[in-house]
Amino acid sequence: MELTVYLAGEIHSDWREQLKSKAAESGLPLTFVGPQENHDLSDAIGEKIIGSQPNNVTRDDAASGINNLRTQVLMQKADLVIALFGEKYKQWNTAMDASMALTLNKPLILIRPESLVHPLKELSNRANVTVETVDQALDVLHYIYQ
Amino acid sequence: MELTVYLAGEIHSDWREQLKSKAAESGLPLTFVGPQENHDLSDAIGEKIIGSQPNNVTRDDAASGINNLRTQVLMQKADLVIALFGEKYKQWNTAMDASMALTLNKPLILIRPESLVHPLKELSNRANVTVETVDQALDVLHYIYQ
Amino acid sequence: MELTVYLAGEIHSDWREQLKSKAAESGLPLTFVGPQENHDLSDAIGEKIIGSQPNNVTRDDAASGINNLRTQVLMQKADLVIALFGEKYKQWNTAMDASMALTLNKPLILIRPESLVHPLKELSNRANVTVETVDQALDVLHYIYQ
Amino acid sequence: MELTVYLAGEIHSDWREQLKSKAAESGLPLTFVGPQENHDLSDAIGEKIIGSQPNNVTRDDAASGINNLRTQVLMQKADLVIALFGEKYKQWNTAMDASMALTLNKPLILIRPESLVHPLKELSNRANVTVETVDQALDVLHYIYQ
Amino acid sequence: MELTVYLAGEIHSDWREQLKSKAAESGLPLTFVGPQENHDLSDAIGEKIIGSQPNNVTRDDAASGINNLRTQVLMQKADLVIALFGEKYKQWNTAMDASMALTLNKPLILIRPESLVHPLKELSNRANVTVETVDQALDVLHYIYQ
Amino acid sequence: MELTVYLAGEIHSDWREQLKSKAAESGLPLTFVGPQENHDLSDAIGEKIIGSQPNNVTRDDAASGINNLRTQVLMQKADLVIALFGEKYKQWNTAMDASMALTLNKPLILIRPESLVHPLKELSNRANVTVETVDQALDVLHYIYQ
Amino acid sequence: MELTVYLAGEIHSDWREQLKSKAAESGLPLTFVGPQENHDLSDAIGEKIIGSQPNNVTRDDAASGINNLRTQVLMQKADLVIALFGEKYKQWNTAMDASMALTLNKPLILIRPESLVHPLKELSNRANVTVETVDQALDVLHYIYQ
Amino acid sequence: MELTVYLAGEIHSDWREQLKSKAAESGLPLTFVGPQENHDLSDAIGEKIIGSQPNNVTRDDAASGINNLRTQVLMQKADLVIALFGEKYKQWNTAMDASMALTLNKPLILIRPESLVHPLKELSNRANVTVETVDQALDVLHYIYQ
Repeated sequence: MELTVYLAGEIHSDWREQLKSKAAESGLPLTFVGPQENHDLSDAIGEKIIGSQPNNVTRDDAASGINNLRTQVLMQKADLVIALFGEKYKQWNTAMDASMALTLNKPLILIRPESLVHPLKELSNRANVTVETVDQALDVLHYIYQ
Repeated sequence: MELTVYLAGEIHSDWREQLKSKAAESGLPLTFVGPQENHDLSDAIGEKIIGSQPNNVTRDDAASGINNLRTQVLMQKADLVIALFGEKYKQWNTAMDASMALTLNKPLILIRPESLVHPLKELSNRANVTVETVDQALDVLHYIYQ
Repeated sequence: MELTVYLAGEIHSDWREQLKSKAAESGLPLTFVGPQENHDLSDAIGEKIIGSQPNNVTRDDAASGINNLRTQVLMQKADLVIALFGEKYKQWNTAMDASMALTLNKPLILIRPESLVHPLKELSNRANVTVETVDQALDVLHYIYQ
Repeated sequence: MELTVYLAGEIHSDWREQLKSKAAESGLPLTFVGPQENHDLSDAIGEKIIGSQPNNVTRDDAASGINNLRTQVLMQKADLVIALFGEKYKQWNTAMDASMALTLNKPLILIRPESLVHPLKELSNRANVTVETVDQALDVLHYIYQ
Repeated sequence: MELTVYLAGEIHSDWREQLKSKAAESGLPLTFVGPQENHDLSDAIGEKIIGSQPNNVTRDDAASGINNLRTQVLMQKADLVIALFGEKYKQWNTAMDASMALTLNKPLILIRPESLVHPLKELSNRANVTVETVDQALDVLHYIYQ
Repeated sequence: MELTVYLAGEIHSDWREQLKSKAAESGLPLTFVGPQENHDLSDAIGEKIIGSQPNNVTRDDAASGINNLRTQVLMQKADLVIALFGEKYKQWNTAMDASMALTLNKPLILIRPESLVHPLKELSNRANVTVETVDQALDVLHYIYQ
Repeated sequence: MELTVYLAGEIHSDWREQLKSKAAESGLPLTFVGPQENHDLSDAIGEKIIGSQPNNVTRDDAASGINNLRTQVLMQKADLVIALFGEKYKQWNTAMDASMALTLNKPLILIRPESLVHPLKELSNRANVTVETVDQALDVLHYIYQ
Repeated sequence: MELTVYLAGEIHSDWREQLKSKAAESGLPLTFVGPQENHDLSDAIGEKIIGSQPNNVTRDDAASGINNLRTQVLMQKADLVIALFGEKYKQWNTAMDASMALTLNKPLILIRPESLVHPLKELSNRANVTVETVDQALDVLHYIYQ
């Protein structure tokens, strides 16, 4: 039973690498997909492909269209979604991706630190499972195969 | 042609009252629904109905289940959704509600200040229309009836 | 904002009458629907309409087809569902109706006594809200209108 | 034509092993999935992954979120579902899973002893096929390939 | 609780009038819709609106497009469907409409004489309820309101 | 049986007024909705609401977001769609709206002159009914009520 | 691009074998599925698996539940459906399967003799393509790969 | 992560060959599908398979049914869609296919020359990404794998 997991959430830390390398050790047949992790590329991709834009609003819109296409293609391939919130940043894309997953009936594991319990309470309540660490999310993936 | 509009977003300012009162002046057949605007009640509703909870996590979870039920009932009645982001607060519920609306194929008008152009660029790209003020959102509603 | 509420669950007590009469006092624009509450009629309706059946299996099947048609028609009209489990009876129809509601994306309020916490834990986890009394379920309905 | 079959139902007997071993003998390209069959692990998985909980309600809720995620992932992979009811236990999860399958348009084979004809009559009427033994369910699987 | 009922089936007898007049006597809030009952008009409607056609195949295709549009509009309005098969005629439209209803998750009452038990066995098995007379179908409608 | 009809197609002639006035004479309970018919307003609405844009591409994008929101809101209310193609103009919005209607399972009447038979053959084949005049489309609406 | 094709229609002639053997010669990556072609087995399968039934109605119902499960499993795997009507038999299962396919958005090729043009006109109008011979249906399959 | 891409748009230039050959050089696991590119065959396929037709309207309808079946089968297999508009031709099939893709929730890349900005503004606004060249579309495909 191969499963594809979309990893939504912050792209400023190496949590995806940690999770992928531990999953690889376990030998489970998991494929991981997710957003563009090169932050500069993610912001610049619109102008890089389409050409220079007249202002910041249109520059951002050009990039986000391509990022959204990527997310839509990959999330539709996913069997479940893990969304990680850190303590910094606004992370509205993480909330947007998590809610898209839930509304598409894709199971969701939410990872968030204890400090974010209150502001994430409604999203946590909709998630299937809420944990605090990447290792706990990996434990949930393992449990599917036990 | 009566339309029901769900007003997602911050509950710390009176933007909903402004929008509703201006809409009422225009005489358009609009019904507005939205989240619980009494912040204290919204946080306390779990314990108020279900009884005291063992800790903050479960207190928050009890409240959020009831808030989520409310949102789900009312958003399913809505023909379109307006989501407002302000400059303060994490506002992950606003992002969650906006994404749910889009995924359910409900048209979305996003209201956000210029300062939030960059962090909201992917959500803005998915929205049908992005504006900066409540009056502009109201102009879009008027345009449907012109 | 009129709402239709399907009341799933045991038909051996008068909990629906309690809930309806308290809701009527509150003046909220709620319409309640639910299964056939006349237990004998519910069991006999197949033979009553279609004629006598060769054995108990076919007698039960004849009745259940008509009961299921009724549930399907009325639940499709419902905006949300309340499901009550009591301490007696197998109540598999209640579980079936509650799960149908959740899978159809209809919000669910689960009412169950403390003694059933463990056997109903997975259903409770999928429900939007779990309470122990009819009055608490009514409080949740009130909260939608506050 | 490979098919994946979700085996819902009681985890206190070895019916899944019987069914799987007989299916293996037949050489049909069937993959079987199902709930966690280690009952203690199933009840403890919440605290095992997330940590100790303040009381039984939250302990059960923590476990059930993870069990529900597992069910949702695996059932979405399934082409059809077999649900077995035995004479003991409340088995509300079995009823919940069977109804989820039917509502998701997954074909359902119901296995139940004659003694449960009456209380399961509505679920049996919605099922595609109702049988009394594991061997009969296996016969239905064989028939798909004949 | 107003319900709309689509009456599929033969247009050569007056069964719809019988059913409607008995339903009217009962005072139930039922609205009935259905196919064009004027057989000649139904066959001629293509040429009548679009103009003369080069041969019988295209004449029939022109009529059937308009008949199918009518069915699609009205069946999408229906809460449930009653399909009647008589002993004469091929009645493939009745089978087509009944199957469309079931696939759209509209509850179906099938009316067929005892002589058609065998050739209609698969459709009868998918229907919610199978009866032999118009009065029995009306009894099922009454039961929804009891 | 009230029906709402979305009128897609060119906004440079008065075909909608003709159709609406003839429908009004017939007394049928039809409500007509459609795109913004004031062409200048339709092109300018983006800058009018959101403010001046840096170039023609962004000016057009600002207007089209608002026009698309309008179409989405109104088409979701529609029971069927009429799409008219004339001999001039590219009319890609008409093709887009007609295809959206068909994909959403909304019945479609296509009106096109004989000169466009060949380039519209695939759309015509998907439409429920293809006619050449507004009067013929109105005849199809009448037929639903006969 | 592998495709799975469900072959609905009469089981009294060898049209499926003809079609499969010609398709095999062409080397196209097609997999064919369909109903049980052993007529006696198809009628007897209920009693064969579940045991003897009290009368013909229940015997037929037992068989049809198993046949319907088979159809549902296999049609959900299919990318397109071919339905053949011959000049004999009532063939309501063929009409039922064809309509299920269309309503599930599965493309349909209808094969019917010229003598059935009139009674099948509405189904033919809904089908993507209508032909008169098995070879023509095969030509359509070939065209997908050209 | 293998992806299937449907290439909608004009069949009078070799843009598909350019795109496929460049994609092949990159080694990405992409499969391309699309409409019949032999224009004469596309127009003649109806008469070629079904036989000579009485006039041009029916000749075109016969061909388009087969072309639409092909598009429906292949687009349902696609993970995303690229639609190219050139400066000539009416290209209503391109608009129809692009809108079908968007309504089916398939991500869309629109390729159009600057001269078509205005007439395609609504479709461009609904598309995920709009570019002007085949190479830019290929860049977007590459970005999914970065």
